[in-house]
Amino acid sequence: MANIGVVTTATNNQVIFRNYVNGFPKESDLYIAASTVDLRVPPGSMAVLVKNLYLSCDPHSRTRMGKPDPSSPASMAHAFTIGKPISGFGVAKAIDSGHPNYKTGDLLWGRVGWEEYSVITPTPSSHFKIHHTDVPLSFYTGLLGIPGLTAYIGFYEICSPKKGETVFVSAASGAVGQLVGQFAKMAGCYVVGSASSEEKVDLLKTKFGYDDAFNYKEEKDLSAALKRCFPEGIDIYFENVGGKMLEAVLENMRTHGRIAACGMISQYNLKKPEVLHNTATIVHKRIRVQGFAAVEFFDRYSKFLDFILPHVREGKLTYVEDISQGLENGPSALIGLFHVAAGNKIGLYKL
Amino acid sequence: MANIGVVTTATNNQVIFRNYVNGFPKESDLYIAASTVDLRVPPGSMAVLVKNLYLSCDPHSRTRMGKPDPSSPASMAHAFTIGKPISGFGVAKAIDSGHPNYKTGDLLWGRVGWEEYSVITPTPSSHFKIHHTDVPLSFYTGLLGIPGLTAYIGFYEICSPKKGETVFVSAASGAVGQLVGQFAKMAGCYVVGSASSEEKVDLLKTKFGYDDAFNYKEEKDLSAALKRCFPEGIDIYFENVGGKMLEAVLENMRTHGRIAACGMISQYNLKKPEVLHNTATIVHKRIRVQGFAAVEFFDRYSKFLDFILPHVREGKLTYVEDISQGLENGPSALIGLFHVAAGNKIGLYKL
Repeated sequence: MANIGVVTTATNNQVIFRNYVNGFPKESDLYIAASTVDLRVPPGSMAVLVKNLYLSCDPHSRTRMGKPDPSSPASMAHAFTIGKPISGFGVAKAIDSGHPNYKTGDLLWGRVGWEEYSVITPTPSSHFKIHHTDVPLSFYTGLLGIPGLTAYIGFYEICSPKKGETVFVSAASGAVGQLVGQFAKMAGCYVVGSASSEEKVDLLKTKFGYDDAFNYKEEKDLSAALKRCFPEGIDIYFENVGGKMLEAVLENMRTHGRIAACGMISQYNLKKPEVLHNTATIVHKRIRVQGFAAVEFFDRYSKFLDFILPHVREGKLTYVEDISQGLENGPSALIGLFHVAAGNKIGLYKL
Repeated sequence: MANIGVVTTATNNQVIFRNYVNGFPKESDLYIAASTVDLRVPPGSMAVLVKNLYLSCDPHSRTRMGKPDPSSPASMAHAFTIGKPISGFGVAKAIDSGHPNYKTGDLLWGRVGWEEYSVITPTPSSHFKIHHTDVPLSFYTGLLGIPGLTAYIGFYEICSPKKGETVFVSAASGAVGQLVGQFAKMAGCYVVGSASSEEKVDLLKTKFGYDDAFNYKEEKDLSAALKRCFPEGIDIYFENVGGKMLEAVLENMRTHGRIAACGMISQYNLKKPEVLHNTATIVHKRIRVQGFAAVEFFDRYSKFLDFILPHVREGKLTYVEDISQGLENGPSALIGLFHVAAGNKIGLYKL
């Protein structure tokens, strides 16, 4: 029998992927389209229908926009699908659920589509239920989500920091970098960050506890800038940008330095990547370079939350979010990342 | 009172460093000269006068031949001194000793000059007394010395091999590479090596247990050669050469691959090092690259010896040495390394 008078479908606006991207992505590589979503999950299904509340703008998305290699299943799985909504990490609320661990009204964060409603099938390695709502929900796309876990794993696990060591962070005012600086201070390190504007450099020094910072766009010689900030060299580099900056860092790295290679945003849009001239420095200085992705450390998430939540509640960690309102602003917010290298988020709706 | 009738000095032939090297070293960058050595150490001294028995030809020496940076004490200390004998690792016999742990006739290995006699002051981080003489003494410059420890630390500690993983070794017939192949087989891995001649490729397959091998000089496309040998990709790369090979390996590396960066011999003689085009692969594939030097793992030497000696005694490890006779052949043997990339040794004298 039909549920007469009960609304069981809704319009679902989506951010659709138009075509594979070569070089810098443009807003026109994405477009908004409306579809219809069933507000009930099919009986017997393990799916959860969620209403998306916040979506994270993540530089990593760029790696999913290129044309995949048809001979590589991994590459095909990683790439966005033309004509379908793009996806990423977001905060959402369950509207209907066939999953035993989720009920209507539950909040969660994890992988969702860039759309008003998504149908997901949560697993412990894809979604986390949100139990702490005394902190801003948007934090689960930042400080308490992937960027936070990235900073935590990259700094504490990959870099093994010791008190008194020197730390350099590129894209330091970004979603990850602003936390790495604060973690470095907690660990008793000397920390310097680079960013792309004077305004961001000020933020680094006044809000995020960086001991020093510079605007890389104003430096003619990156290696000289690093030498000025680190006359004794760099022990730890939290790598977010790659390219010329990595080369300059290797020149200034100390023996036994560690590099957490979190991202190389400067390279994602180049048709020809920049080359590295001093690879042999890794041998000469016995450096460790470790690529990593936070999604592979979800087993540490609850430990991470235990660590970070008290700091957040006591106001000991500063986190600056840049929230655009409304799904229609999603494409410009995402594309803007590659021009300003910040850690933006899109707030779809207030709860 | 003078010791009338007792010879207390001897002629000491030495391999002298003529001048800093730029590009490929030549035999004429070194020359032989005779000096005189006192056969007694001064009373009260902790020094040991040794007669050198074997000297190791080590590609690492090239890094000490370049002009040092006067503003860097480390660089100055590392470089050979013009007009003085070069130095390296060797096997030697104590002739006279003021050191409580060494007496006349003791055998040892560690840092010595390229000369007939050296005066050393042994420390636990510079010299090891040789207790096992049922194996060839020359092995302490190879299998049981720095090359052996390098292969052991690099493979077992840096690469964390798991059974069934795929391993690639460059300069695979060298002093280190021939052991890495055999360690990889012991660990249940599939291992492929590259070398610079058909003869070496044969050695790899018939003597050193490599599952497959190729002559990199005969391959137009290194990446294609690796794809042929590793259709499923490479888990572990034992890096001895750098340059284009590293680039090709990164292309063929599997997710979570590990690279032990032991040396980059292809780069040492280049005025302009080759560039790396695919650095961002380290992030995309979450690869770990670790530069290391065996001399920083001397605390593991006795554990290493406990591991390797039984294999040597049972004939389970093959080790091919290329021994030149006589100090006068030292320069050509050392320089030859950079043309054939083998792991040579100079036998000064038979005991």
